[in-house]
Amino acid sequence: MTQVFGHNYIGGQRSAAGTVILHSIDASTGEALPQAFYQATAQEVEAAAKAAAAAYPAYRALSAQRRAQFLEAVADELDALDDEFIALVCRETALPPARIQGERKRTSGQMRLFAEVLRRGDFYGARIDRALPERQPLPRPDLRQYHRSAWGPVAVIGASNVSLAFSTAGGDTAAALAAGCPVVFKAHSGHMATAERVADAIIRAAEASGMPAGVFNMIFGAGVGEALVKHPAIQAVGFTGSLKGGRALCDMAAARPQPIPVFAEMSSINPVIVLPQALQARAETVARDLTASVVQGCGQFCTNPGLVIGIRSPQFAAFTEQVARLIGDQPAQTMLNAGTLSSYGKGLQKLLAHPGIEHLAGDPQAGNQARPQLFKAQASLLVDGDEVLQEEVFGPTTVFVEVADQAQLVAALNGLRGQLTATLIGEPADFAQFGELTGLLEQKVGRILINGYPTGVEVCDAMVHGGPFPATSDARGTSVGTLAIERFLRPVCFQNYPDNLLPDALKNANPLRIQRLVDGRPSRDGL
Amino acid sequence: MTQVFGHNYIGGQRSAAGTVILHSIDASTGEALPQAFYQATAQEVEAAAKAAAAAYPAYRALSAQRRAQFLEAVADELDALDDEFIALVCRETALPPARIQGERKRTSGQMRLFAEVLRRGDFYGARIDRALPERQPLPRPDLRQYHRSAWGPVAVIGASNVSLAFSTAGGDTAAALAAGCPVVFKAHSGHMATAERVADAIIRAAEASGMPAGVFNMIFGAGVGEALVKHPAIQAVGFTGSLKGGRALCDMAAARPQPIPVFAEMSSINPVIVLPQALQARAETVARDLTASVVQGCGQFCTNPGLVIGIRSPQFAAFTEQVARLIGDQPAQTMLNAGTLSSYGKGLQKLLAHPGIEHLAGDPQAGNQARPQLFKAQASLLVDGDEVLQEEVFGPTTVFVEVADQAQLVAALNGLRGQLTATLIGEPADFAQFGELTGLLEQKVGRILINGYPTGVEVCDAMVHGGPFPATSDARGTSVGTLAIERFLRPVCFQNYPDNLLPDALKNANPLRIQRLVDGRPSRDGL
Repeated sequence: MTQVFGHNYIGGQRSAAGTVILHSIDASTGEALPQAFYQATAQEVEAAAKAAAAAYPAYRALSAQRRAQFLEAVADELDALDDEFIALVCRETALPPARIQGERKRTSGQMRLFAEVLRRGDFYGARIDRALPERQPLPRPDLRQYHRSAWGPVAVIGASNVSLAFSTAGGDTAAALAAGCPVVFKAHSGHMATAERVADAIIRAAEASGMPAGVFNMIFGAGVGEALVKHPAIQAVGFTGSLKGGRALCDMAAARPQPIPVFAEMSSINPVIVLPQALQARAETVARDLTASVVQGCGQFCTNPGLVIGIRSPQFAAFTEQVARLIGDQPAQTMLNAGTLSSYGKGLQKLLAHPGIEHLAGDPQAGNQARPQLFKAQASLLVDGDEVLQEEVFGPTTVFVEVADQAQLVAALNGLRGQLTATLIGEPADFAQFGELTGLLEQKVGRILINGYPTGVEVCDAMVHGGPFPATSDARGTSVGTLAIERFLRPVCFQNYPDNLLPDALKNANPLRIQRLVDGRPSRDGL
Repeated sequence: MTQVFGHNYIGGQRSAAGTVILHSIDASTGEALPQAFYQATAQEVEAAAKAAAAAYPAYRALSAQRRAQFLEAVADELDALDDEFIALVCRETALPPARIQGERKRTSGQMRLFAEVLRRGDFYGARIDRALPERQPLPRPDLRQYHRSAWGPVAVIGASNVSLAFSTAGGDTAAALAAGCPVVFKAHSGHMATAERVADAIIRAAEASGMPAGVFNMIFGAGVGEALVKHPAIQAVGFTGSLKGGRALCDMAAARPQPIPVFAEMSSINPVIVLPQALQARAETVARDLTASVVQGCGQFCTNPGLVIGIRSPQFAAFTEQVARLIGDQPAQTMLNAGTLSSYGKGLQKLLAHPGIEHLAGDPQAGNQARPQLFKAQASLLVDGDEVLQEEVFGPTTVFVEVADQAQLVAALNGLRGQLTATLIGEPADFAQFGELTGLLEQKVGRILINGYPTGVEVCDAMVHGGPFPATSDARGTSVGTLAIERFLRPVCFQNYPDNLLPDALKNANPLRIQRLVDGRPSRDGL
């Protein structure tokens, strides 16, 4: 049995100076697990931020190759975690072992993909404009630009719902470490033991690969995230969680003497638009696949489809009934923790209490499991931007909306706030008829899917897991995929620098053999 | 004589509904120019924001090629402005015709460079991860990403000091229009007639190239910027000006129900570090060139060197005396306007009143011109982060700091806040001895120069005119150079999209012949 100590990690050392004791909960039984976790004191939060700041100059000075080796060492350590670890995660989250094994693979794969990005070198965005000494009326100096970490430590505040891939060694941590920023991770109270085992793995990897102490730090506790975000050493924040929590962090960060960016992934209802010809051709399949996406993982995904829109027709009415039957047949599932279950209950109450919303399927919420539910809302609620439809109800439920016609569909989509995803279910004839939808959705969402379902977020170069507010606090970024590294980079320009003083990425000979923009043309050659 | 009407531009129409009348000032004589300018009413601010929002869907839907043609038409219109226009700008700014002609060329050149970027297509950042239908345990869908405007209208708040290149048709306007965002420009009170003539040129170009009405709007008035930034239709802000003004806008934007990004270029003292061997080799040349940079354009550049650091030695003492003599010999110059002159006077007063700062050269400030000044501050003020040395004094003055040794130099640089630029003046032996400076300055500034002077900001691909707070509000961006377009773009991902529905940048055949990242490798080919 690998021991869990419940200590904070500061500068590579364990620390347990506090007196506030927290306990992790068995998500299925609701019982407290025996291990005590020590909430970080104000001094420990400060020490963690300072340890990260102290590690920063040494860490940022390492070559991309060295950082890649570190990330790969983390990946190897994650993959080496034993069955006892998987059982522990399952206990804290009530998720099945297969899901956790898959998520672990995704998490280590994510680390390896960022290592690949570091070796590939496109993240440098290297640009060279050579001197034009003869230019009139003034010569042009030699100017060279690349992207690098110049932020300092990043605070990462983990999600409740994805205890590995969006948590301790998750996407934000991976992107920040890849960029060259040390991390202070604030563990979620929902899976503290998991967090400790993963932090152990990161620390082992850091030591084995000769990283500076303080490259990764972790603190436990309620409210410690606030102190962290306000600490002057912290230079950026990654967050996955609720709109309320994310917005509070953004406000705090903006009010600092030195404001810092917050990359918060917050709230999305992920509309699915079911077009007429698709219903003619394959209503049953769509109903089955959509229902599966709604209840997958007990609906606890950022990209869970919370809104389904169709155009009034006998086919859409039949389809609605079909989905109602399927949702009604879905079993209750255990949620991640009591807080999530309670939020789900409150979200359902709001829908049930709204005069413009009808309950179509699902047993009344009761007991300690979430019961899948289906609702139907009047289209006017969407067109008029009614709050209740814009709010994410985190759990296995979705709301159907029947619009009168194509014009009302467009009006309803225009009424939506920013989203992580939007999905079109249609046949070629639908896309010909509804050609304006892509351009419209491009203004609203980070990812548009055709004939797929938004749950399942691939980690790759082309993924965008982001979108306009309130989906995220900064639509220019993504928190999944390799582009996520850009959130923690900034451009630096060198003017008239002698070749030997330039970073390798910008040297004449192009020793890293990376792609560069030289005098406006892409090149992998030396100068 | 081309008439100036003093009207706001809203949706391509003139509008003068207000009763608050403003006058532009002859910068040399202080006299009001005859033309009345109509401050925009609250309704006009609203109408301008809405006109831009109404233009957005049509403008963003235009191909990059069409937007490039529009920018080139603006460039042609700017170049065609007559000598009367040049005389008008000189009158409003007290700058010499050669400077204005040069700046006009820079402004039209900037528009043409963004047109080139639009045709080149690297701004798309196109990435394609092809489907892997056989992958286990789950297939990978086809995922494609590109960058495009998905922000809506941009509010641009112009600078006082660069009445063409950072103003009506300046860098922020060019970048926003290139990205596909309509602009509402808030004209600076210091050059309203200039702004109107330039706005006329943009409107003529918009009409000639078939752009939607409302692609460019302009409003006059004090305080109207605030209403603009708070308007729900505005989705991003570009600003060049003071730290106080920029910070106020950032706070407003962050407090909106839907927060929006502000790209504010604010305050920088642009340290110049003069290393020992350079003083041995060429103290006189350095003194002359440095002085020229300090007084260039009456010190009214964002990159004016406001701080000069050297290591204590007889050579540095002699160099300081030399610069004092040169600064003492510089003539008084007319500043842009009375407000700038008054701020300069107040800034000097703060330096004069500080017990740790000594006045070395310059006649007492008096009359309606700015007199060049030289100061010397104790090194401890920098090391301890004293406010007075961190604040930009906008005008022809600089502060010398003599540090005891290399260690104190590093401590002093660590004490600096974020800067647009830092400059190293040195010989090869200096750079060998002071090898840590590049890594240190990379954490503080946007552009590092060797043996040059920071005034003069080249418009090119590799330029970075940005830097950590308080130099700018967002160190990930630049407000000069082609990378500036990225501030107004965001990534959008398409999953499983049929080829015919994809944007051209992501189609299999690569009809735009742009560089793309395909399955992790750069490619200009079709799939």
